[in-house]
Amino acid sequence: MNLSRPGAWLSDADMIARCRRLVEPAMRAAVAGLHPWGAAMVSYSLGWSDATGRPYEGAGGKSVRPALAILSAEAVGGTAEQALPGAVAVELVHAFSLVHDDIIDQDELRRHRDALWKAYGVGPALLAGDALLALAVARLADRPEAMRYLSAALVELVQGQTADMAFESRPWSGPGEVSVAEYTQMAAGKTGALLGAAAAAGVALGGRPDLSERMWRMGVELGVAFQIADDVLGIWGDPQVTGKPVHGDLRLRKKTVPVLAALGSGEPASRRLADALASGETDDAALTLAACLIEEAGGRTIADRLAARHLGAALDVLDECLPGAVALRELCVSLAGRAR
Amino acid sequence: MNLSRPGAWLSDADMIARCRRLVEPAMRAAVAGLHPWGAAMVSYSLGWSDATGRPYEGAGGKSVRPALAILSAEAVGGTAEQALPGAVAVELVHAFSLVHDDIIDQDELRRHRDALWKAYGVGPALLAGDALLALAVARLADRPEAMRYLSAALVELVQGQTADMAFESRPWSGPGEVSVAEYTQMAAGKTGALLGAAAAAGVALGGRPDLSERMWRMGVELGVAFQIADDVLGIWGDPQVTGKPVHGDLRLRKKTVPVLAALGSGEPASRRLADALASGETDDAALTLAACLIEEAGGRTIADRLAARHLGAALDVLDECLPGAVALRELCVSLAGRAR
Repeated sequence: MNLSRPGAWLSDADMIARCRRLVEPAMRAAVAGLHPWGAAMVSYSLGWSDATGRPYEGAGGKSVRPALAILSAEAVGGTAEQALPGAVAVELVHAFSLVHDDIIDQDELRRHRDALWKAYGVGPALLAGDALLALAVARLADRPEAMRYLSAALVELVQGQTADMAFESRPWSGPGEVSVAEYTQMAAGKTGALLGAAAAAGVALGGRPDLSERMWRMGVELGVAFQIADDVLGIWGDPQVTGKPVHGDLRLRKKTVPVLAALGSGEPASRRLADALASGETDDAALTLAACLIEEAGGRTIADRLAARHLGAALDVLDECLPGAVALRELCVSLAGRAR
Repeated sequence: MNLSRPGAWLSDADMIARCRRLVEPAMRAAVAGLHPWGAAMVSYSLGWSDATGRPYEGAGGKSVRPALAILSAEAVGGTAEQALPGAVAVELVHAFSLVHDDIIDQDELRRHRDALWKAYGVGPALLAGDALLALAVARLADRPEAMRYLSAALVELVQGQTADMAFESRPWSGPGEVSVAEYTQMAAGKTGALLGAAAAAGVALGGRPDLSERMWRMGVELGVAFQIADDVLGIWGDPQVTGKPVHGDLRLRKKTVPVLAALGSGEPASRRLADALASGETDDAALTLAACLIEEAGGRTIADRLAARHLGAALDVLDECLPGAVALRELCVSLAGRAR
């Protein structure tokens, strides 16, 4: 599978930066109408200000979802302006999900800073998340051709998050263990659906609602690839880059693909990993050992392969549906390597 | 002002019961698609089951919002079936707001039972609230004529809740005190907007979207009346009836109309009340004293009058817009007396 194609006249970083320049003013306009306190929290969560309300640079998201919406619209002959309500809505929903997820997971760090709940308290942060969601929905209320995908993504996102949370109380191995297939379904909801909504809303707003269903599927596959890549970084990612502690997902005892695949691979290291996890130890030495055993049992390799397979499925849909969409294709390929 | 009219062939309790019978199967169908854990929490929050998942009777809401949507549709010649997506959506948003409000306010009781977060934990309850909201939005995604009011209500609801939370850190009296006008604006968002959306969506789905704007205003006024009546019950309501502790809102030091009006009335008791509140004491004796001083300073009377004035404004809109809507009018009148 050849993942790169000639002909893209902008790097994906340039494409994303262009989309962010288009989307940010529209996002700021949406947020400006909020109660001052709500606006301050939302600005903090979007990386525009610090906890004292002063402007802040460098903590924003990567805006991949808006870029996906905009490039999808452009790929069907529409304009970035047409896609803007969808681009803003998916980015607001993404921000909403991060704010609430950090509360649920009690994650104290987000993009190298205190998570919103840590900076402002749980109740206010919960409400700021609700505000982000309300603004997102308002942005597409009169565009049913896009709203139907945003709302489907919302339901799937919550379903995926619920499944993820339910995984926590299940055993690492033996009866009741979480399968890689179940994990994939969870990731399709938690991460895939919103990318699906971005792509589906993009083509719908760009004038080709007939392509939305297939672009939704494309985005879901892309999201699964992205989530698995993110899970690899959640164990082996550089804290300087991810803004999260080293071995963060292991410390939180998250059941992610590398771990689940390692436990199920039947390698000698699998059994030792199961014992190590069952011990419940989360000191640095135990986490380092677990990470090594996961790698030794093939968990990392299987996860990388699975991510590539889902990316391939996404690109197959894209190539069938929009064979000339060079920039969009580049974005999808780079996105799966850009987790965290 | 004559609040009752002859000709209603069902009592308002009967009307609400009829609407609930119509709405509940549609709500159950919406919830059935959720992850089992999410469905269990949502069922608990809607009063359908206890915390062990067993069916439960008698803890459901009063379904006044769905009734408002359905009777609004019928008042313009539409059917209950036409209004159903709107009725379900507003009830789900109402349930969402209760679940999140209880987390924010750390309220441990809801309808005589543990609040959802108390029964299932903060993270899961937060997520169950998000699920309720996602289901609501999905229900109206392809009905822009109703969705636009639901989404406007969502934004207003969050704004109102944020304003309410911001009131907490402001002084009881002196510079920076909260005015009754500010309170009214907060209540219009926190409580009025969703009633506005119910009425506006009801007439839109019933075939008269041209009446939606006015019905939105009607609902907002009704909501302010309802909220003020609820605040009176929050201080003097019977715990057996309200399911909340006696003097609950005073214990939580909530800035509600009876207190704000009493502080601003210039009666001799106003000054004593300000001192009592400034002391910060929340033992039973202090709360009983505060409640007496509020009444003595005229806070309760002013609140009752203000509620009646907003109800009157709602009925004026209704009488102008839908003069023959007898059942709907009865519902509005009874609703303002049915807070909690």
